[in-house]
Amino acid sequence: MHSLLTIKTISTGQDNMNLKAFTSFSELSIAELDAHQQAGGKIAGVYCIYAPNELIRAAGIVPVSLCGKKQQPIKDAERDLPASLCPLIKSSYGYAITDSCPFFSFSDILIAETTCDGKKKMYELMGKIKPMHLMHLPHTQQGSAPLQYWRDGLEELKQFLTDCSGIEVKEEVLHQQIVLQNKIRHELYNLSLLAADKRSPLTARDMLAVQESKSFTVYPEKYLAQLICLHTELEEHLQEEGLPERNGIRLLLTGCPVGIGSDKVIQIAEELGARVVCMENCSGLKGMTMPVTETGDPYLALAERYLQIPCSCMTPNPNRAKSIKEMVKAFEVDAILDMTWLGCHTYNAESTTLQRTIEEETGLPFLHIETDYSESDEGQLRTRIEALIELAE
Amino acid sequence: MHSLLTIKTISTGQDNMNLKAFTSFSELSIAELDAHQQAGGKIAGVYCIYAPNELIRAAGIVPVSLCGKKQQPIKDAERDLPASLCPLIKSSYGYAITDSCPFFSFSDILIAETTCDGKKKMYELMGKIKPMHLMHLPHTQQGSAPLQYWRDGLEELKQFLTDCSGIEVKEEVLHQQIVLQNKIRHELYNLSLLAADKRSPLTARDMLAVQESKSFTVYPEKYLAQLICLHTELEEHLQEEGLPERNGIRLLLTGCPVGIGSDKVIQIAEELGARVVCMENCSGLKGMTMPVTETGDPYLALAERYLQIPCSCMTPNPNRAKSIKEMVKAFEVDAILDMTWLGCHTYNAESTTLQRTIEEETGLPFLHIETDYSESDEGQLRTRIEALIELAE
Repeated sequence: MHSLLTIKTISTGQDNMNLKAFTSFSELSIAELDAHQQAGGKIAGVYCIYAPNELIRAAGIVPVSLCGKKQQPIKDAERDLPASLCPLIKSSYGYAITDSCPFFSFSDILIAETTCDGKKKMYELMGKIKPMHLMHLPHTQQGSAPLQYWRDGLEELKQFLTDCSGIEVKEEVLHQQIVLQNKIRHELYNLSLLAADKRSPLTARDMLAVQESKSFTVYPEKYLAQLICLHTELEEHLQEEGLPERNGIRLLLTGCPVGIGSDKVIQIAEELGARVVCMENCSGLKGMTMPVTETGDPYLALAERYLQIPCSCMTPNPNRAKSIKEMVKAFEVDAILDMTWLGCHTYNAESTTLQRTIEEETGLPFLHIETDYSESDEGQLRTRIEALIELAE
Repeated sequence: MHSLLTIKTISTGQDNMNLKAFTSFSELSIAELDAHQQAGGKIAGVYCIYAPNELIRAAGIVPVSLCGKKQQPIKDAERDLPASLCPLIKSSYGYAITDSCPFFSFSDILIAETTCDGKKKMYELMGKIKPMHLMHLPHTQQGSAPLQYWRDGLEELKQFLTDCSGIEVKEEVLHQQIVLQNKIRHELYNLSLLAADKRSPLTARDMLAVQESKSFTVYPEKYLAQLICLHTELEEHLQEEGLPERNGIRLLLTGCPVGIGSDKVIQIAEELGARVVCMENCSGLKGMTMPVTETGDPYLALAERYLQIPCSCMTPNPNRAKSIKEMVKAFEVDAILDMTWLGCHTYNAESTTLQRTIEEETGLPFLHIETDYSESDEGQLRTRIEALIELAE
């Protein structure tokens, strides 16, 4: 596997500082979070892309993603939670009760959401550790009543945020945050498209680091600037002559979120010579494809946009297949890998129908795998992913 | 095990026709359902006690419980659904796709609800077979917004019901149904209390048949009359002198619903000499303890009552521990058996906290078991339930 750093060092003799910044973003952000808190600023721990960044920041609070991507704290979580819950929930809870996640320690408040049964019940326990606000998601994206219910919920969240920071949310500030987050989403999507170029030296794990860094960003303007910088550098790089092409099968990864630490399927796919060119999951581009309307009632605009996230918690969830089909075209995808965590009922139950729709409408091979954070099934995963790659060849 | 039939035959020389009527209620109702449908009446298949009987009947529609309590159709369901879903969901779906449930065949419409992730996603598939209305439950019983959302949902259900039957729901008729269902709930609770008398010959499986019959009732007035008749007969019976007492440990069963066919834990407990004196689950008394307010806006009254059902889909769910503690007193309970189906995240996740609360506040031993519809774990269940009984002795 190449990294932009190596390629650039070879081709231009320069270090790629931008990518370095992304790959160690979460560590770098700790100093900034500390300074923010020392200066009296507040920090909100979040677990999910339904948490509206714009609103949190408009209340002067920095949203930060909490740990939940490693196997290690799961055994502690299982003292309180059933083993049948997904590893993401158990890992998140394990980090919280053992106080082993620095971002959890920093958090003044937690923002939770009713995306699934397991999380919903786990948050009851976690809410005893830190002040928590539970966002009540409707189960559907259709109709005016759920939208209004969700919009009113955002006003409740605003009140919780203001109670925490003492900062009233001004519409003008909220509008600025909406414009800024729209720019970031737009830039991230465009950068991802460029990174999927056959001659791009960026790996899926590089892009995962870039995307994940969004969740540890104390200063979003700085993050946007870094994205633009990487984009420019990559664009310049791709203009160079004689760059080698990467000819592996182009995979789209969908399903449950993955992150640095819970990315074994990406690693296996890449080791097998395939290339994960895009991730249609909430750690990937799922949260990047829709802008928030910049005019009118900002709460309604936020409610509309966030409610349209194609999460399997929605019933029905037609936007997911639509979003995958769009990415299949845009990223020239050869096969679909649907990875779900064991115990994630909504994504697992959605898989059969999704597979039928995608195979029928795109003709692409589709593989659904259920796995967890352990290493025990790596051999089996390797065999199955290899078979998918052979089918796509 | 005694049955009232045997005892009565011995003690009074009369057959107990009332209990017989309950134990074969679902079979007997088929003829009545057929006649209702032949006369142009409509039938709604329901899966859950959140479906408001009163409203369905006020639209001239008979609500009937659909099959989902046997192992047999599960293998068919697993063609479309993940094996990790609970047996109740897979069994229900299996019956539907194989058209092997007479009540499903009778149903003109289905009424579904967002009680859990698995059901929610399963209903997407089932909704392709019959016209379905999905009731959107809020995730909490607290605050005015969820209540209003749920109330408005009942108005939507009313419209769906009227579209099916062509019968407009009149407030007067709805009020009559509310009064009638209140009487049934009240009578059922009182009968259950009496049936838990130490000298009562009724077993838990007898009472399960009585309670379950409510869901197959074409004519609720007739069902109420049968309840009253059984109550009177039992009361008279208990006035006889020299009746033997049943001295086994008195168990309260909580957790997921059980039914005739999925009642192996009741059977095992009774075989071990214990007595399940009450069931705090939605196939038991959970749905019988609260009346609907009989004055004011009937939709709000229904919304208030149904939203207070202490289901683990609610977060938090304080009413469940409260309800258990009340039943512990009323039914003189010695130990708690919390039975959950494998894959039921909400009940499984609630178990640890519930156990701590119940043990602390009642001092009673508490056993949580996770099982499914298969017979494979009966030996292990027997050992664990035996240990609970020994603890309670």
